[in-house]
Amino acid sequence: MPNLHVALTHYPVINKNGDTIASALTNLDLHDISRAAMTYGARSFYVVTPLGDQQILARRIVSHWTSGAGAEYNPARRRALELIRVKESIEAAAKDIEKNEGIYPKTAVTCARHHTASISYEKFGHILKNGLPCLLVFGTAWGLAQTLISEADYVLQPITGTTDYNHLSVRSAAAIILDRLLGAGR
Amino acid sequence: MPNLHVALTHYPVINKNGDTIASALTNLDLHDISRAAMTYGARSFYVVTPLGDQQILARRIVSHWTSGAGAEYNPARRRALELIRVKESIEAAAKDIEKNEGIYPKTAVTCARHHTASISYEKFGHILKNGLPCLLVFGTAWGLAQTLISEADYVLQPITGTTDYNHLSVRSAAAIILDRLLGAGR
Repeated sequence: MPNLHVALTHYPVINKNGDTIASALTNLDLHDISRAAMTYGARSFYVVTPLGDQQILARRIVSHWTSGAGAEYNPARRRALELIRVKESIEAAAKDIEKNEGIYPKTAVTCARHHTASISYEKFGHILKNGLPCLLVFGTAWGLAQTLISEADYVLQPITGTTDYNHLSVRSAAAIILDRLLGAGR
Repeated sequence: MPNLHVALTHYPVINKNGDTIASALTNLDLHDISRAAMTYGARSFYVVTPLGDQQILARRIVSHWTSGAGAEYNPARRRALELIRVKESIEAAAKDIEKNEGIYPKTAVTCARHHTASISYEKFGHILKNGLPCLLVFGTAWGLAQTLISEADYVLQPITGTTDYNHLSVRSAAAIILDRLLGAGR
């Protein structure tokens, strides 16, 4: 099984004008991406924000579904949200993986724009099979800031559909990318 | 180009106890699935509910993004939400396609459970290439009621990941299925 970890980061990301910002949490991002991560066997899902009040909100959402009323109402949802770890940065997430897995992970970022050094889903799927820890990072708002992209070990190719429309939600993009990397029975 | 239309239905669907219900709209379903439908070249996205107040709510969300303040704020979102047509039933959606395309569409349903007569993504992708209209139906809540599944021309295979966890959101499932059918450059 691949040693895959997923992160959704709220900083540093860009807004529609290209400025670097910290974005706000979206409740359904936590639900949808944890359910997809669970479906495709990811070992953890890091929700990354440097803002203290947003960390508290994220932990409150998670605890509702993992130990609060939601856990009894929907045990399947509980299993998914138990994957979530709230961290202040991608580096803190990577260090947490190192602590748990014994090796600092390779990082891969996803981006809706083309980059010269981007890697195909097929190639990255092969890399995942080596069993070493990998952290796959998704961005909120208008996408990851260039600093995060430049620091990553791999940049995945953008998702192409059948049109020039290139505005999937991060929830949809995460689902499609996990399926391209790990899905069976197409 | 395939002549594909997408529907998200809120009735008849089942709840966690297996009872047939009408579910409530979820705002992000409209956004995420219209953006995915646009990405993969679907010609329309039918939001189906027999409840009058829910039809009004759906049209209000759509008009905010297609002619209200949202249209100016985010033109890419406008293009996606312009795909949405609100209808009272799958049959009404199919008749609307017949009116626009000249041929009553074949219907395909998606289901998280295995069915004996289910068709693979590859086979259904080939069928789409014949250019005849097809309506791909997704269910909300705990999935489509059996009556809708029985009436469909095709039942698509469930999405399998790498685990036995089988609880994707409909937003994630719709994105993955459109990508499996029509995505390029995996």
